[in-house]
Parts: sequence; C-alpha cells; structure tokens
Amino acid sequence: MKITEKRLQDIGEFGLIAKIRNWMDVSRSDLIRGIGDDAAVVESGKKALLITTDILIEDIHFERSWTDPFRLGKKALAVNLSDIAAMGGIPKYFLISIGLPKHLSFSFISLFYRGLKDAARRFGVDLIGGDTSLSRKIIINICLIGEGKKGNLLFRNGAKIGDDLYVSGTLGDAALGLKVLQDKRLRKKPKGLVERHLSPVPRIELGQALAGKRFASAMIDVSDGLLSDTLHIIEESKVGARIWEDRIPLSGPYRRWVSTYSKDPYRIALSGGEDYELLFTASPKRKAGILSLARSLAIPITHVGEIIPEKERLHLIRKDGKEISPRRFGFDHFK
Amino acid sequence: MKITEKRLQDIGEFGLIAKIRNWMDVSRSDLIRGIGDDAAVVESGKKALLITTDILIEDIHFERSWTDPFRLGKKALAVNLSDIAAMGGIPKYFLISIGLPKHLSFSFISLFYRGLKDAARRFGVDLIGGDTSLSRKIIINICLIGEGKKGNLLFRNGAKIGDDLYVSGTLGDAALGLKVLQDKRLRKKPKGLVERHLSPVPRIELGQALAGKRFASAMIDVSDGLLSDTLHIIEESKVGARIWEDRIPLSGPYRRWVSTYSKDPYRIALSGGEDYELLFTASPKRKAGILSLARSLAIPITHVGEIIPEKERLHLIRKDGKEISPRRFGFDHFK
Repeated sequence: MKITEKRLQDIGEFGLIAKIRNWMDVSRSDLIRGIGDDAAVVESGKKALLITTDILIEDIHFERSWTDPFRLGKKALAVNLSDIAAMGGIPKYFLISIGLPKHLSFSFISLFYRGLKDAARRFGVDLIGGDTSLSRKIIINICLIGEGKKGNLLFRNGAKIGDDLYVSGTLGDAALGLKVLQDKRLRKKPKGLVERHLSPVPRIELGQALAGKRFASAMIDVSDGLLSDTLHIIEESKVGARIWEDRIPLSGPYRRWVSTYSKDPYRIALSGGEDYELLFTASPKRKAGILSLARSLAIPITHVGEIIPEKERLHLIRKDGKEISPRRFGFDHFK
Repeated sequence: MKITEKRLQDIGEFGLIAKIRNWMDVSRSDLIRGIGDDAAVVESGKKALLITTDILIEDIHFERSWTDPFRLGKKALAVNLSDIAAMGGIPKYFLISIGLPKHLSFSFISLFYRGLKDAARRFGVDLIGGDTSLSRKIIINICLIGEGKKGNLLFRNGAKIGDDLYVSGTLGDAALGLKVLQDKRLRKKPKGLVERHLSPVPRIELGQALAGKRFASAMIDVSDGLLSDTLHIIEESKVGARIWEDRIPLSGPYRRWVSTYSKDPYRIALSGGEDYELLFTASPKRKAGILSLARSLAIPITHVGEIIPEKERLHLIRKDGKEISPRRFGFDHFK
C-alpha cells in the first residue's frame, strides 16, 4: 500500500481557506468580521475599518497579450474596491506591492500607474504606500482600506429564511469575455464582453445605498460565480437557497455569443467568475424600495432566487422546471 | 542613432519609487505619512494607524532549499513587524495574500502557517483576512496594521544637524548568512549567521521604547543595508551624515567568517541588507538615556555616526582615517 502525501490540489482553495481559518482562530474584542467575508472588519473608535487584499499574478489572472497596462492598473484596484462595495463601505486608501521583471519597459509601468490613478480618482481613494520587488512574472497585490458605520455594514452571514435573492447587472459576461480573449480563431472580439473581463466596474454606489438604507440582509460580490458566491452566503448564514435559472440576467452580447462556447446557455452565467456584480438577500418587504433604488441609480437589479431552510441547501430550478442540486460551483484555483 | 526604450533596470528600485510618489501625489487631511517611510500613517480618531506591506517571492527573496516552511512563515511576518517597530508603533493585525503551486505538499502549507502563528503569538498580532491563489512560485504578501500615538511616532524625516546616529544589535550577519547559505562548498554552515538571515527578530520593544520616551528624532529599520538606510534618513530629513566605519557593531561569527567572502571586512556590514536592526538619530542630550535603555532591554546600541549639514551628504570615515563618499548603497532589486 502506497501512502501518498496530500497536496494542495487535493484540498482545493475553499478547503485551504477553511483550514487556515481553523489554524489561526482569532478572538479579539475589536474584530467584527475576520477570515470568511469580502473584507476584514475591525472596530476603530466610532467607526468600522474595512480591510481587503487581492493578488493578481501574470499568466494566472491575466496575460500581457490580452490586456494593456492601463486596464490592468484599473482592474487591480477595481477588484479590491468591489470587496468594499460588497459590504457597503466607503473605500479610502490603499497600498500596492508589485513584482516586476527587470526587462519590463518603463512605459508599461507608467501606463499601469496611470490606470491605477484613473480608478483611484474615480472612486476617491489614494495610494499611500507599498513595496516593489523584482519578479519573473508581474505580480500585483493591493491592500485597500475603507470605512463604514458599524451598524450598517453588510456581511455574508445575514441571510434569513424567506428573504429574496437579488443580483445587480448581468452575469456571465466577464467569463464569456475571457473565453473570447483566449480564442485564437477569433479575429474581431466582441468589445462588450471583453471589456467586462478587462475593465470591471465595482458597484460602490449601489453597495453603499443598500447598506445605508438597510435594504439588504446579506451581501457578497460575484467574483467566483453566481452558484459559488450564493454558496458562500448560505454557508455563512446557515440557510439554503433556490435560484430560478430563467431569471438570471443575461446581456445582449452574452446571448449572442454564448452558444459558440457552451451548449447550455446558462452554464457560464452560473459558474463563471469576475462579474463583480453584487449578490444580496433582502426581506420581501424591501422589494419596492430595492426596485426604486435600481431605477434611480440606473442599475438593473434582478430577483433571481429565495432563501430557504439550511437542510434544503442549494437548488437550481432549470428552465424546463427540473430542480437540481449543482455539484460544481465555479472556479477553484487549486483544482 | 538608435533610440532604445527605457527599461526598469535603467531606473532602479529607488528611481521607480520616486516616480510612483510623483505620479500618485496625494494630499489628504488624514494622511500623516505616505509613500517614502517604513509604513503609511493615517489619522484615525485619536490614534494613528500604521499600515505596511511586504512581498516575499520564491527564488527572489528565498529559496525552498535554504529555508523551511516554519521559518519562512515566521520571517514573512517579522519583516512587516520590523516596519512597525521602525516607527515605534504597536502591531495589531494582518492580512496575507499567498500564491501557491498546485503540487505543493499540504505539510509545507501547514508548517508555514504554524510559523506564521508562532510569530503572531509572540508579538500579539492576529491574522484577520487574505487572499489565496495558484502560482508557479510561492508568493507571500503581508499587509500589517498597527497603532500609535500621533505625537510619539518616529519617521525617517526627523533627523537634525548635530544628532547622533545609532544602530541596534550587530550588522552584516544576515547578508553574510545568505552568502553562507548560497555557498555550495560549505557543508557545515555557521548557525548564528544562517539564523540571522532566516529568522530575523523585529525590534518591536526597542522601537516602542525609543518612541515612547521621545529619545529618537528619526528612525528606520535596516532592511536595505546601513549605507542605503542612512541615505533614506538623510534624504527625507534633508541633512547629511558621517559614519565611522570602525564603530560599526560586528558579531563574533561575522568577524570569523567575513574574510571567506570579502577582502574588506566592513563591506558586507555596510551594504548587506535584511538585518532588521533599528537605525535612529537622537540629540546628544539623550545619550545617557539611550545607553541606559540598551542595558535594561539587553540590546546593544552603538553610536556609529553623526548628522551633518545636507550639502555634505553621506561620508564614511574608513578605519585608516580616509574619508570617502560611498557610491553604491546596498541592494537594488532592479539593477
């Protein structure tokens, strides 16, 4: 009998995070939310401090041939801003650690920082520090700090049985955009989808409005995929969820292009990541308020599901009426 | 005439940081210190928040064959703790972004987190969040947050003409330890030097005491090397400095081993990085207080130089009495 050592790929990304949470268990009186939410939340005087970090690695998260340094700079900040949006916080300032190859052109670096500054200005945040290093591949790690009112912030763990499940914008565009970027046969790439992948827009205003008006009970940003991120909410909230497939909001470009890459028109919208839309739950009493907020911000918000008891777990109602319990939930880095 | 595009290696690490500081210029009322110090410092209610970030990349900052995952976890946190020490702050909590190869053994990861936890316990800090990703090489980025009293914190820019220049501990051990680790001829490696490289101890208590007693006027940790870090202090403070080579504190193991790797016995102590000692300036009136603090903490503190007018820049008084203006200052990642 051969005993093989366990490797990272056997455990998977979410398995690893669960282990880390277990190993490093933390109890400190100023900690409001630790590992297991979009950002860490710490009490600081009368306010809550929100802290999030995200790493982008060349040839894992992006390829130099697909993107340009300006968009890369914008996206590096946007993915962190989205974590603050998902709690309804106000982003404030950030630090960036950057690993760069020795032979990288100076114009690449200068354009990267121009993109970073563009996103920083747009969302009112400032670069206050960082670290630089040599590296074979480009590595970008941002640590973004935001603020919020203690009682208003939205976490993954607030969903209640009977709540509605909503999502902003449309889903699957970024994942389909990635397929388009990777498709060497395709000369002229559909711009809308590609831009959703390369230039995601964090839903900062929407997040703050949902938190400020106390409309939502739980919230997350859709970075791993609709099914995977719904799973994060229901696991943290100890509830179940039912999603109606035919309600999932799909864009025009998605509908036109999805058949080129998938027989099932919903698969990519269900499990593709990086849309950076907001997924949230709210009491049915809030429905009119939420729809009116959607109109006033001109952001589509769609009622895609409902929260059910924990023992029912996650159910997907297919277009043909069949109910399934999806097994594979989006993307796992290590599998 | 051929016009060649500028590359990162032409600008160098400190050139790049100066450019970034220029591009991203920040003025916000709550920012006490931004880019260009050991940590960023932001006002938060009555306190100051200190935020620092450091990246470690496999085969740039460490090799798996030299170190073990436990020491690597400890060091990843220690280098960040040292930045908080250099301002006299109290470290509080941290986030870690980690890039890991798919085939990495689970025991490696578990030992790494054990080392991280060991250092976290020793210095009273907690892991509150992070990010995980697949990566070809191991990448570790920590963002550490600390606190301090606004009026007490020490920055790089407070040195005054006539101040004394002090350094804690001994210098050059970590850089010599690295040479020993890289030396394939050497079977039995001198443990003291190797440990100084693999397991640096941040000078948290000393930093807090120097800040709390208001003994020092400027402070930095020696991460780039004595000459390079003195240069950081004098550039930020707009002063010059004179260092007496024969006063540089050298350890017994350093004295025994330095001739194997360098004809000049001071070169490695002057320009080798990663000692994580504290380098600080203080008014001559503070001398007795500083020496008494050194005794009570059982940490050697050595008076190695003095602050002189800016126009005199950096001078090194060699052992033979010759005065030189050193050109090359420690390690530049991109050169």
